[in-house]
Amino acid sequence: MQAVRVGICGLGTVGSGVANLLKQNGEEILRKTGRDIRLVHVGARRDHPDCDLSGIRVSRDIFAVVNDPQVDIVCELIGGTDSALELVRQAIKSGKHVVTANKALVAQYGEELFRLANAAGVSLMYEAGIAGGIPIVKAIREGLAGNRISRLAGIINGTSNYILTEMEVSGNRSFAEVLVEAQALGYAEADPTFDVEGIDAAHKLTILSSIAFGVPLRFDAIYTEGIANITVEDIHFASELGYRIKHLGITTQSELGVELRVHPTLVEKTHLLAQVNGVMNAVLVDSDAAGQTLYYGAGAGAGPTGSSVVADIIDIARNFPDGQRIPNLGFEPEALLDLPILSINETQSCHYLRLQVLDRPGVLARISTIMAQHNISIESLIQKDVRKTTAPIAIITDEVLEVAIIAAVSDLEALEEIVGSVSRIRVESF
Amino acid sequence: MQAVRVGICGLGTVGSGVANLLKQNGEEILRKTGRDIRLVHVGARRDHPDCDLSGIRVSRDIFAVVNDPQVDIVCELIGGTDSALELVRQAIKSGKHVVTANKALVAQYGEELFRLANAAGVSLMYEAGIAGGIPIVKAIREGLAGNRISRLAGIINGTSNYILTEMEVSGNRSFAEVLVEAQALGYAEADPTFDVEGIDAAHKLTILSSIAFGVPLRFDAIYTEGIANITVEDIHFASELGYRIKHLGITTQSELGVELRVHPTLVEKTHLLAQVNGVMNAVLVDSDAAGQTLYYGAGAGAGPTGSSVVADIIDIARNFPDGQRIPNLGFEPEALLDLPILSINETQSCHYLRLQVLDRPGVLARISTIMAQHNISIESLIQKDVRKTTAPIAIITDEVLEVAIIAAVSDLEALEEIVGSVSRIRVESF
Repeated sequence: MQAVRVGICGLGTVGSGVANLLKQNGEEILRKTGRDIRLVHVGARRDHPDCDLSGIRVSRDIFAVVNDPQVDIVCELIGGTDSALELVRQAIKSGKHVVTANKALVAQYGEELFRLANAAGVSLMYEAGIAGGIPIVKAIREGLAGNRISRLAGIINGTSNYILTEMEVSGNRSFAEVLVEAQALGYAEADPTFDVEGIDAAHKLTILSSIAFGVPLRFDAIYTEGIANITVEDIHFASELGYRIKHLGITTQSELGVELRVHPTLVEKTHLLAQVNGVMNAVLVDSDAAGQTLYYGAGAGAGPTGSSVVADIIDIARNFPDGQRIPNLGFEPEALLDLPILSINETQSCHYLRLQVLDRPGVLARISTIMAQHNISIESLIQKDVRKTTAPIAIITDEVLEVAIIAAVSDLEALEEIVGSVSRIRVESF
Repeated sequence: MQAVRVGICGLGTVGSGVANLLKQNGEEILRKTGRDIRLVHVGARRDHPDCDLSGIRVSRDIFAVVNDPQVDIVCELIGGTDSALELVRQAIKSGKHVVTANKALVAQYGEELFRLANAAGVSLMYEAGIAGGIPIVKAIREGLAGNRISRLAGIINGTSNYILTEMEVSGNRSFAEVLVEAQALGYAEADPTFDVEGIDAAHKLTILSSIAFGVPLRFDAIYTEGIANITVEDIHFASELGYRIKHLGITTQSELGVELRVHPTLVEKTHLLAQVNGVMNAVLVDSDAAGQTLYYGAGAGAGPTGSSVVADIIDIARNFPDGQRIPNLGFEPEALLDLPILSINETQSCHYLRLQVLDRPGVLARISTIMAQHNISIESLIQKDVRKTTAPIAIITDEVLEVAIIAAVSDLEALEEIVGSVSRIRVESF
């Protein structure tokens, strides 16, 4: 059987990881799959210190890889959505299969790109874009293909999970302090917005939701909330109440429509999701036949992301020499269900509230009255007697509609016994 | 596209689960995959109360399904290795694809059956045989196809995990007591040998090892130890030392060869594997590129096992109408590496020892001397002062060769200050 010829565009962490992995495990891959997968062309502005490209054609122009008739599969590993978009368009139009690790590209331009790929009869694969080395796209598209999925919840941004874990472990370090440390360790970017504001997680969740429920990519409709407002005090209260705070991407499907939301969430300590620490990722899937399954692994890095890129290459290579297109399974533009995406105001959750109250008689009664007026039940409450003029109170509510909790919080903040604003974090049961 | 026609042999829990799932989610599967998968023939000695087979041909002779020219894919769901073996042989020889949930069959007769399937150009799939609804075979064969796997460790028998979990949660119930309860709840068979003695786990581990390392199925060479000797006292000591006791299947590959062993194991409490409770299953994979990944879900039941059978059916159906064989990836008899399987005596582990000693001066010194004579370091030790004539001691050793620990235990048991035999459980770090 003839060799399957791979081109890589972009030689950063992921690109060099893929090049090294193909070299290091090429023989083993050949033995296991019967496919001789060869890296033949790399397009990159500069070399990578950890990557020996001897014997491989190297171009400084990434488009030279796309235009190389010797290349069967193009790996788009440059990131971003400018050149990457043009590169993937051209590769598809040249009849090449494409493997990408670029979640932003797929989340924002996936519909166009999948239509192009379907028309050209080539595959467009993106396992590496979501949760690094965890084969979660494959698990949902293939492993759980017989199921109806009702909910998917994931720790899908390692930077945020690292920061929350360190805040909890240290017991006294603020978000800002840990962020600086994460930047020094290379776990957070100089501009950390994409990670800590949840945009990166939103890109990934958009894609997961689309393949889980067969709905269009609706990055425009996702609700996103970051972790910058989480305090050590919240982490302590959550712990006392039996929870850990995790930054989750959650998407659900019900008769009402699809929920798409990224936000800090209180998760019961005993649940596996609460035990996922540091930069690790995990995705939980609730489905009708298989029940609850969970997938855990490293969310980033040369090895894990490279592993997923190579898995996609092998999946494509299995169909060679015919090279037939791998069906997108729930991602075919023509088979998508245009279910409504619910706005956050239409969703229901339990909530954690933290208030700072003046130490006066009748405060608790006033708080309880306001909650009752909004028809909100209190599941648990902790009041700290700190022998100071103000004391913190933490509350876990029953499940309520977003609009009701917003109104209740607004009324609480209007009470003169409540100092400052009320912190609010959603609580999710698994 | 023409329909893909499925036949089911055996209508127990799994068979009825598959029939119901195909009916319930058939339309959704068609939308997602473009494949119209139809159950056309069921072979079973009797009907199933939860399964409506109206409109489907039913035969009391399972071989009628195999001989039905209308059937493209045969699901062998009768279990056992007598009729099942003959059934799968005949199905393959008739040019039909086969999906089975039968780990015993694959572990013991897989080599012959895969050769037959390869010769006939049909697929033989078995995702449902291992860890129920968790797509672990797919994860290893495809999701991690670019990796070299070094170790795989799994909680792959729900009955044993349920018993150990209940013993720990209750804090005072013996193996025998919990077993009776598990039998009443339907979590354990009337004859529980297969589950609690580790034979079922050994079947599954044999298959996982073969696909992870590309070695032949060596059920004959596996080391198997059950959980019947685990006491509540062991669970308490393990907990004090920072561990939980789990019944694990572990397989590793190194330059020396392949380890294949099923036994109770002390796992650090903080590791995800230690948090897998009740009848749930989980498989941990250590690989060179992706690092550590873990897959969690229900290990048995109509829904989870049915989910995996249907996923295999869909994988086969994707290649219709050509119906080309799905490569076994690391399971092709001609591509297997005949690495040596190490005997348990050649393996190294840390060990937990529990001894009952007479309350006399110098006992600890004698124990330490024996350990030192065998060149075994003690990592931690707890001696309980129970103010009785005998007291328990628990020890965690450093990593030692099996033969050394056996010799040391034998010398310890010969000490007149040690009452009864020494309990020994392996300790594994992840």
